[in-house]
Amino acid sequence: MADYIEGKHPIIEALRSGVPAHRIMLADNERKDPMIEDILRKAKKFGVEVVTVPRKKLDELSEHGSHQGVMMQTKPFEYVNGITILQNAEKSASERNGAALVVILDHITDAGNLGAIARSAESVGACGIIIPNKRAARVNATTYKTSAGAIAHIDVCQVSNIVQSIRRLKDEGFWVCAASEHAKDGIWDANLKGKIALVMGNEGEGVSRLVLECCDFAVALPQIGEISSLNVAQASTVCMYEWLRQNRG
Amino acid sequence: MADYIEGKHPIIEALRSGVPAHRIMLADNERKDPMIEDILRKAKKFGVEVVTVPRKKLDELSEHGSHQGVMMQTKPFEYVNGITILQNAEKSASERNGAALVVILDHITDAGNLGAIARSAESVGACGIIIPNKRAARVNATTYKTSAGAIAHIDVCQVSNIVQSIRRLKDEGFWVCAASEHAKDGIWDANLKGKIALVMGNEGEGVSRLVLECCDFAVALPQIGEISSLNVAQASTVCMYEWLRQNRG
Repeated sequence: MADYIEGKHPIIEALRSGVPAHRIMLADNERKDPMIEDILRKAKKFGVEVVTVPRKKLDELSEHGSHQGVMMQTKPFEYVNGITILQNAEKSASERNGAALVVILDHITDAGNLGAIARSAESVGACGIIIPNKRAARVNATTYKTSAGAIAHIDVCQVSNIVQSIRRLKDEGFWVCAASEHAKDGIWDANLKGKIALVMGNEGEGVSRLVLECCDFAVALPQIGEISSLNVAQASTVCMYEWLRQNRG
Repeated sequence: MADYIEGKHPIIEALRSGVPAHRIMLADNERKDPMIEDILRKAKKFGVEVVTVPRKKLDELSEHGSHQGVMMQTKPFEYVNGITILQNAEKSASERNGAALVVILDHITDAGNLGAIARSAESVGACGIIIPNKRAARVNATTYKTSAGAIAHIDVCQVSNIVQSIRRLKDEGFWVCAASEHAKDGIWDANLKGKIALVMGNEGEGVSRLVLECCDFAVALPQIGEISSLNVAQASTVCMYEWLRQNRG
């Protein structure tokens, strides 16, 4: 999560999307136009502290130089640890006839895609999302927006090593399925019953070789069209819903 | 399609997304900065005429007052008529063991959603998309972007009356399936084999009552999560892929 969101419109959008706010800083010489009034109204509604600071302070904090007299300091997103994901999985398996879904994102770089995937994951009742802590999208204000707030309702775990996480999930009885356009088998011929870890690759190269070698099997999503280019969020959604279909009560 | 796109960044983005360009108008007193040079390079690559005009002319044409010395006139999107969609369906049915998919959007208002749906529709090999010609999103530069260019590879038909289009499709042997969160049956229990017209409702209210009454059946997409809010593009993608699953060879 970016520590600061700057500018009137981005702050209104962030408050609307449910980005957790620490406080709002208003330049001491800022005129109260309708957008500022909207921000103050929302801050009051959500119980966010508003402080007045010298404009110079905002100039110092601003990364983009586009604060327009107002900045919002966000609360850091609360990532969970791997244990929480496994506990969620145990609960899911006990309630849903052995079924549990964990989504692993192998270096997705677009925070918007992360949000769209979180929205679908929350919708099918997934146990959590595992993302790398380096060279990958983190939860930021865009993620809140594209997830329509769902990111606040699903556990996200940052790990230093995807392969290790996969091994751990295997030890816990998960079958690990990579989505790869190069796979021989189609998603509908795969057995996705029970505890499944679904690995989605990044926007450019897909699942990396090292990660792919560690998966139990790989499946492809048929694409019939001429240009054949579902984005990773749409492909993830179809795969997650196929897991749900195979595991419905 | 908006007739004019204004400003450096939007024009670069539009050229990149494959928005068909008629010509680019450059203010006579505009300095050639790196973005303008990028635009000129892309214009040359795609064979788009560049004309120099008095800056005043751009000021007159500009809707948003944000032309930054450059505007691009787009070619109108070429919608097809209903006959073309039916011909596509005939071809699809003959090649794919009787299967054909037409997607009907009941007043989707977001041009980005239209693009995302077009991308999935192209990907499953749908015969076309039917949209209303009033109070609904039309194909614009955003549609090109969110469809990743797929909108240029799928037929889109604008109609004045969705109900009439549904009747016509029924006459041609289509089963008409509405996606509705209020439906009793889940999508996976529906028979989507053969010629299917899939009706998706708008972002706020879903499929309208009049249209729903005209459909053969309605299906719901299970949503297990706490906040349960797949957007219409994601829901469409899952439904289209379920059609593909039931109709694979």
